[in-house]
Amino acid sequence: MRKEYLYGGVEAGGTKFVCALGTGPDALSARCEIPTTTPDETVGRVVDFFRSHAVESVDGIGIASFGPLDLSPGSTTYGFITSTPKPGWQNTDIAGRLRTALKKPIAIDTDVNAAALAEGEYGAARDLRNFVYYTIGTGIGAGIVTNGRVLHGRSHPECGHIRIPRDPLDTFAGACPFHGDCLEGLASGAALQGRVGELAQRLSSDHPVWRLEARYLALALVNTFYMLAPERIILGGGVMQRAALFPAIRNETRALFGGYVGVEPLEDFVASPALGNDAGIVGAMMLAAKAS
Amino acid sequence: MRKEYLYGGVEAGGTKFVCALGTGPDALSARCEIPTTTPDETVGRVVDFFRSHAVESVDGIGIASFGPLDLSPGSTTYGFITSTPKPGWQNTDIAGRLRTALKKPIAIDTDVNAAALAEGEYGAARDLRNFVYYTIGTGIGAGIVTNGRVLHGRSHPECGHIRIPRDPLDTFAGACPFHGDCLEGLASGAALQGRVGELAQRLSSDHPVWRLEARYLALALVNTFYMLAPERIILGGGVMQRAALFPAIRNETRALFGGYVGVEPLEDFVASPALGNDAGIVGAMMLAAKAS
Repeated sequence: MRKEYLYGGVEAGGTKFVCALGTGPDALSARCEIPTTTPDETVGRVVDFFRSHAVESVDGIGIASFGPLDLSPGSTTYGFITSTPKPGWQNTDIAGRLRTALKKPIAIDTDVNAAALAEGEYGAARDLRNFVYYTIGTGIGAGIVTNGRVLHGRSHPECGHIRIPRDPLDTFAGACPFHGDCLEGLASGAALQGRVGELAQRLSSDHPVWRLEARYLALALVNTFYMLAPERIILGGGVMQRAALFPAIRNETRALFGGYVGVEPLEDFVASPALGNDAGIVGAMMLAAKAS
Repeated sequence: MRKEYLYGGVEAGGTKFVCALGTGPDALSARCEIPTTTPDETVGRVVDFFRSHAVESVDGIGIASFGPLDLSPGSTTYGFITSTPKPGWQNTDIAGRLRTALKKPIAIDTDVNAAALAEGEYGAARDLRNFVYYTIGTGIGAGIVTNGRVLHGRSHPECGHIRIPRDPLDTFAGACPFHGDCLEGLASGAALQGRVGELAQRLSSDHPVWRLEARYLALALVNTFYMLAPERIILGGGVMQRAALFPAIRNETRALFGGYVGVEPLEDFVASPALGNDAGIVGAMMLAAKAS
């Protein structure tokens, strides 16, 4: 009889952690959500979850974490959350803490790389060998798949921090504590809120800030296309819950191609995620299968 | 006895074509240069070169061409130079013309992808699995290697056409006929010439335009780093003959990282090509080995 493997998944987000247990991403036997507070308290509750759910029979645990992460094999800080602006979380050895407490094989990658894995296997990028998964939320990040594999170079991509031209009429200084007006500084949920003084989800769809948002995200898409030539770009995250953004982004993207090499139809190229909020935890379970 | 293969290489550039014949990139038996005029005349002279050099014993021919190229397998225009601004060369079936005339297996890729192949095998990126080769010449292009393979997505990358923030004091409209002030429009050799009304190589190294050039190229490097996290970026092409650009670019790059995820030492990360002007034709010979 073929052994049935049991996997644990942890999606480590800036607002909450999601933990799950199951024989596969589509067969979960337990799941819980934990608010993100301090590393000690939050990781402690993750450990409690697995200990109360027969961790001894788990074959491996996958972590899909916010970053930046040190993912250089052989580095003394491999598996650490490094220079995050999130208070209290700089230099947190998230992988090591879970390995020490749970004594199981651990695999770790960024939340967006895990989401890209999941969308590639079960979601909006099935059968594609070259695609990009963006999350446009409080911050901006992306997972990139080239030649069928998640891209890891010297470190993981940090697509949210590319520089794009700002609108000449946009006087907002930018919300990125490191770069000011990089992509994340101009177009993240935090930037939207900083610019208009209100949560993005409270704004009506005809607020002029959405035109600016669509323009900035289209600049990100065009730069991503010209850099990588992906077959599809998936836009997820809280900001993209505003459905009207999709056609506006496609129109701005078409204009920015300017008749040079581009993509049509853009309805197919600029896509919504198929897994919604589950992409991260599904990706974490897929990482677990690699660890064990 | 092991058969010795004979390869042909064609580097198709906007100013000249280079043809070569040999048992490998480091063992050439013949080589010639042909000025780029019309497709009929130029390709005709390439055919003449191979016919006068025992083409019947050639096992395969590799073409490293200026672009954009159609590289989608199965496309009816596979191997065509497509929407180039170069007069007379739009929609030129360069691969098909050589295949028909010479009746040999043909492989084709962009000049920058071929140069990246060559620098990865023999040059400044030996043993690296993730790197980028930029050429900063009349135009700007890049070849990208991820996970040890040249990146081909839906099409080939067009890194010269990413949008970057322009300097607020830069009043030059940009030299790209499609996008105006994209990277190529702001920082190519043609842009330098358009901005100051003189060939870049005639300008003294203390001309203020070099500071602007370093800034724009640093923006390209930072965007490339945040998008791909490569282990090294090689900067080739005519504009980079100005050696003083390298330290200036590194300084601007360091400032743009802004204390966030970055790279040190930049002396190692931002590198000169090792093969100089030979990268394209060496890469073409490497493509030939794949074709045959």
